[in-house]
Amino acid sequence: MAMPWSFSLQVTVPSLKSPTSYNQCSSFNTNVRCQSANEMIQGVEFPSRVGFLGLGIMGSPMALNLLRSGCDITVWNRTKSKCDPLISLGAKYEASPAEVASACNVTFAMLADPESAFDVACGPNGAAKGMAPGKGYVDVSTVDCVTSKSICKHVKDRGGAFLEAPVSGSKKPAEDGQLIFLTAGDKPLYDTVGPLLDIMGKFRLYLGEVGNGAAMKLIVNMIMGSMMATFSEGLLLSEKVGLDPNTLVEVISQSAIGAPMFSVKGPPMVKSQYPTAFPLKHQQKDLRLGLSLAESVSQPVPIAAVANELYKVAKSRGLSEEDFSAVIEALKGS
Amino acid sequence: MAMPWSFSLQVTVPSLKSPTSYNQCSSFNTNVRCQSANEMIQGVEFPSRVGFLGLGIMGSPMALNLLRSGCDITVWNRTKSKCDPLISLGAKYEASPAEVASACNVTFAMLADPESAFDVACGPNGAAKGMAPGKGYVDVSTVDCVTSKSICKHVKDRGGAFLEAPVSGSKKPAEDGQLIFLTAGDKPLYDTVGPLLDIMGKFRLYLGEVGNGAAMKLIVNMIMGSMMATFSEGLLLSEKVGLDPNTLVEVISQSAIGAPMFSVKGPPMVKSQYPTAFPLKHQQKDLRLGLSLAESVSQPVPIAAVANELYKVAKSRGLSEEDFSAVIEALKGS
Amino acid sequence: MAMPWSFSLQVTVPSLKSPTSYNQCSSFNTNVRCQSANEMIQGVEFPSRVGFLGLGIMGSPMALNLLRSGCDITVWNRTKSKCDPLISLGAKYEASPAEVASACNVTFAMLADPESAFDVACGPNGAAKGMAPGKGYVDVSTVDCVTSKSICKHVKDRGGAFLEAPVSGSKKPAEDGQLIFLTAGDKPLYDTVGPLLDIMGKFRLYLGEVGNGAAMKLIVNMIMGSMMATFSEGLLLSEKVGLDPNTLVEVISQSAIGAPMFSVKGPPMVKSQYPTAFPLKHQQKDLRLGLSLAESVSQPVPIAAVANELYKVAKSRGLSEEDFSAVIEALKGS
Amino acid sequence: MAMPWSFSLQVTVPSLKSPTSYNQCSSFNTNVRCQSANEMIQGVEFPSRVGFLGLGIMGSPMALNLLRSGCDITVWNRTKSKCDPLISLGAKYEASPAEVASACNVTFAMLADPESAFDVACGPNGAAKGMAPGKGYVDVSTVDCVTSKSICKHVKDRGGAFLEAPVSGSKKPAEDGQLIFLTAGDKPLYDTVGPLLDIMGKFRLYLGEVGNGAAMKLIVNMIMGSMMATFSEGLLLSEKVGLDPNTLVEVISQSAIGAPMFSVKGPPMVKSQYPTAFPLKHQQKDLRLGLSLAESVSQPVPIAAVANELYKVAKSRGLSEEDFSAVIEALKGS
Repeated sequence: MAMPWSFSLQVTVPSLKSPTSYNQCSSFNTNVRCQSANEMIQGVEFPSRVGFLGLGIMGSPMALNLLRSGCDITVWNRTKSKCDPLISLGAKYEASPAEVASACNVTFAMLADPESAFDVACGPNGAAKGMAPGKGYVDVSTVDCVTSKSICKHVKDRGGAFLEAPVSGSKKPAEDGQLIFLTAGDKPLYDTVGPLLDIMGKFRLYLGEVGNGAAMKLIVNMIMGSMMATFSEGLLLSEKVGLDPNTLVEVISQSAIGAPMFSVKGPPMVKSQYPTAFPLKHQQKDLRLGLSLAESVSQPVPIAAVANELYKVAKSRGLSEEDFSAVIEALKGS
Repeated sequence: MAMPWSFSLQVTVPSLKSPTSYNQCSSFNTNVRCQSANEMIQGVEFPSRVGFLGLGIMGSPMALNLLRSGCDITVWNRTKSKCDPLISLGAKYEASPAEVASACNVTFAMLADPESAFDVACGPNGAAKGMAPGKGYVDVSTVDCVTSKSICKHVKDRGGAFLEAPVSGSKKPAEDGQLIFLTAGDKPLYDTVGPLLDIMGKFRLYLGEVGNGAAMKLIVNMIMGSMMATFSEGLLLSEKVGLDPNTLVEVISQSAIGAPMFSVKGPPMVKSQYPTAFPLKHQQKDLRLGLSLAESVSQPVPIAAVANELYKVAKSRGLSEEDFSAVIEALKGS
Repeated sequence: MAMPWSFSLQVTVPSLKSPTSYNQCSSFNTNVRCQSANEMIQGVEFPSRVGFLGLGIMGSPMALNLLRSGCDITVWNRTKSKCDPLISLGAKYEASPAEVASACNVTFAMLADPESAFDVACGPNGAAKGMAPGKGYVDVSTVDCVTSKSICKHVKDRGGAFLEAPVSGSKKPAEDGQLIFLTAGDKPLYDTVGPLLDIMGKFRLYLGEVGNGAAMKLIVNMIMGSMMATFSEGLLLSEKVGLDPNTLVEVISQSAIGAPMFSVKGPPMVKSQYPTAFPLKHQQKDLRLGLSLAESVSQPVPIAAVANELYKVAKSRGLSEEDFSAVIEALKGS
Repeated sequence: MAMPWSFSLQVTVPSLKSPTSYNQCSSFNTNVRCQSANEMIQGVEFPSRVGFLGLGIMGSPMALNLLRSGCDITVWNRTKSKCDPLISLGAKYEASPAEVASACNVTFAMLADPESAFDVACGPNGAAKGMAPGKGYVDVSTVDCVTSKSICKHVKDRGGAFLEAPVSGSKKPAEDGQLIFLTAGDKPLYDTVGPLLDIMGKFRLYLGEVGNGAAMKLIVNMIMGSMMATFSEGLLLSEKVGLDPNTLVEVISQSAIGAPMFSVKGPPMVKSQYPTAFPLKHQQKDLRLGLSLAESVSQPVPIAAVANELYKVAKSRGLSEEDFSAVIEALKGS
């Protein structure tokens, strides 16, 4: 399919290891370097100019990884000061999402919630205003399906291509280029930005029509939120009955329920420390959106419903900005 | 420490890889062979005669692994026919738990629930009746702390040593000698049976006083039960919104919440298949016992409380004997 | 305050028993009669022409009560045939909400859900199109606050006055003129339609700005949904342990937790009969809206969250159109 | 049926208003007077000597009502000082439950939990020691079925008759003689003590075999605990969205979900006041026992399970001794 926007990008990705719709590419990260337009190294050519909107906990390290790989990056953030570290490393800056989109071939957006994602894309000076045939917009924020489809429509109305690509993974994987991208939307755009996704992540999936990436992401995060809540119950219970909760973490890691999250988050949780990798308020938002998704298809999800309430308790105790593992506090006496 | 019962066992375990209280020993399994008393191979000497009570889903493969490793095994089961395969492979048989315990140096017991564990140990012809100084009783069943302490008392009243050693792991790990033992009680007995535990398992912990092993096991299984329930929610929701639930399983396996259980159980669950590795009724029992444990120390565990209700729904739908992953049926429409 | 529309209505309500913001008026129902414009009986004058949009389980008996009291009623319903019984009793008919609103001084609307309420008020031939200064729109549907405010804006943009007035009470109270109105919005309109509300109900409250009536209604229904779920648990448990569930209903009626709902719904529930007074799908909708309301202010409501899941289970079992007491089926084995 | 003990009691209760198994008797309270043995007033003759064990929040006013009605009362309490007010009004005292039972025809017991109830009845100096043919033991505590049956057995082993008669109602109904008795066990004893129950209560039921009274009580209290939790959710939510929670109490009282408990407890809850009528720790105990009852018959009770967790949270915040309405605190931010 020859979408107009693909002409100007001249992408070839001969090094892709498999013809399937997803690609494990952690080893790929190490030797890929972004090139200016029309240059080629190792058979990979990137979009000539890449925009990045939203430089928070996730966006900053993602943009940094693109920059370090040699990409020509143009950034924007609501609070401009957050752009400074990247600018000092060579990133360009534009004063609005519209101007970034106008200046770049492909623009990524990583915002904190559906409202922000919508505003940055579709607001008065939103990215859609700068879209045109031949350009692509990749929203890596976690939003609900309705918001994603709405952004898609605004982008397409301007002739641009749209890919939703919510990420699974928090601060550390973002820094390490180990994110997971759950993408859906324009397939040629997916193919084009694949090498960029591979710089930022270790695994990517193409899931078909817009909304599917958002849905998959919400379901994964819904499960994650519930798992963290039940893990919290176990840690507190072990301590109360006189066991060492760190031993519980060790036993779990050896067992069939051993997940990396438990080993990473467990020890600081035992010390009541919650350095923010994934803010609790965002986990609660994702549970809310997941519950709405379930509601829309009348699927009972009682565990997620109760977990969501625990995160709300944690929020009401002032823990919104802490890591989502702080949900354990909701189960402690005062 | 020279406990009376340790005289007759003369155990040395020079090959233990570390001085810590737990031991990773999966590689150990392959070359260990049980010897008759006073013989030594590779510096490891086992109790001369080993009893095994209870030959269900878990007990049979565990006893088989001991037998294959060269142990002198004497078995008993409420339904005698379940002993036949092992007898045909060389195991001895006694007609009651008391007679097994009387004939052996160390007796293992693997029963389905606290009531059975108590009966086999403390009933009219229970194992305690056959205990004496120099003998050890190792209960690898999952029971509550009160039951465990009660069995301990009966064994000690007869002069025997007691170790509670509930296992984490189901049918497959039992067959593969990959169980996890969470032990507590008599430390010298723990040291004595260590090589036997290493034949049946890959990891073992000594947790101090009787009750701690039971508590640790219940907490792990409480978390497991909740995780399976939330995983079920995710699988069903993904399917209802038009995603391939197998893709969800794949995404989870790549993410920070990827636990072996999800990868193993997910694909059959998607096909509504629940071949029994860990019966649902036992998972529900463990949730119940875990909730009681939490109740006893006033620890809120709302996720586990709701998960328990889902397993109860599954039971009321006739799924008690299916694998615990059948809890997903509780979340489906009729 | 002299709103333009109040000129034409000339309302006086001297018989109100108290100057407070609410009014108990069950005895009032019996002798009130609606009059054509400018006529007075017992000091009460009604709006000359009254519209009624939506003739379902609730709307039909409400409109009937107004008609029987002598009001000049004009009706509309999406399915016209539902208007026939009222037309045969003297009601007028118009072909669209806009035409009803255009023909009447005050128009009531009783729709099943927020989407319908919005469509009927603000759609292409919606009531707002027929509004003008001097006219009032009273929405007695149960909707969320956002929908209510949106309808209000559309009505006011046309110069009309708006009152949200969701009702508490189902089929029987609607038939008996025993509803409760939780109103908010335009105070003069509240005063004007008070006598009409008193025909249809026994109790009415004015709660201030638009959104407050919707919020109050949702909270009451959220509690009701949870209460019905817990009552269901008790009925089933009593039966399972060998008690007569009808005796439980009797004991509850004598106790401090005795609510009329239990006495009315209990006996048919024991017989697995759920004649629809308040459809289960609407109760689930109200729980959903209540949960969203709680979400918006970060108030944990774990009981409502779990109750909502039970209603979703009941819906997935095909009970949407049954009475909401059919939620008890969600707790039965298959 | 001529039980030995009934000979000495010579009870006739001609004023019973109906031949059914329960009796509404609030008007009865006013003119009944206890008589010494063999005296008759208005056709009612009471057991000559009545014992009362346990003088806490409930026991004290109950014993006081018996005393005021002219009964010959002998009291005992673990902390003797609590007996003093009754002794000063004419009650006798014995130093142990055994001595009270030995001295009286019928002995009532009102203890705080199953453990205390068992100890007082079956311990070293327990009431059972003082039982004999012709004597009756009436346990009005709320206990689980197993405990009740165990006490029954101890009493019967001594030749006594046993009636379990847990009460529904808290401090105020106890003071006002407005309790509800849910009795089961020895029917002749039920008939004998009926007039005494009617002094202390307004309604009594005979439910058959021992265990049924306990079960009925637990189910009622399980529902009550859940209702209080959902009511708490509503009060807090109404306040958070800017409504007056006292208005919510008013609206509820007018609606089909209006229960006396809401009207009584609501206003102090709004003021964060929880004067103890029914201690929170006892409500949590009853939920726990109710959950165990449900567990024993595999009845899912998800609402009760979540409610129980809320009471546990409240306990962990130090509210055990407050009224059970303090569960609302578990839903507030810190």
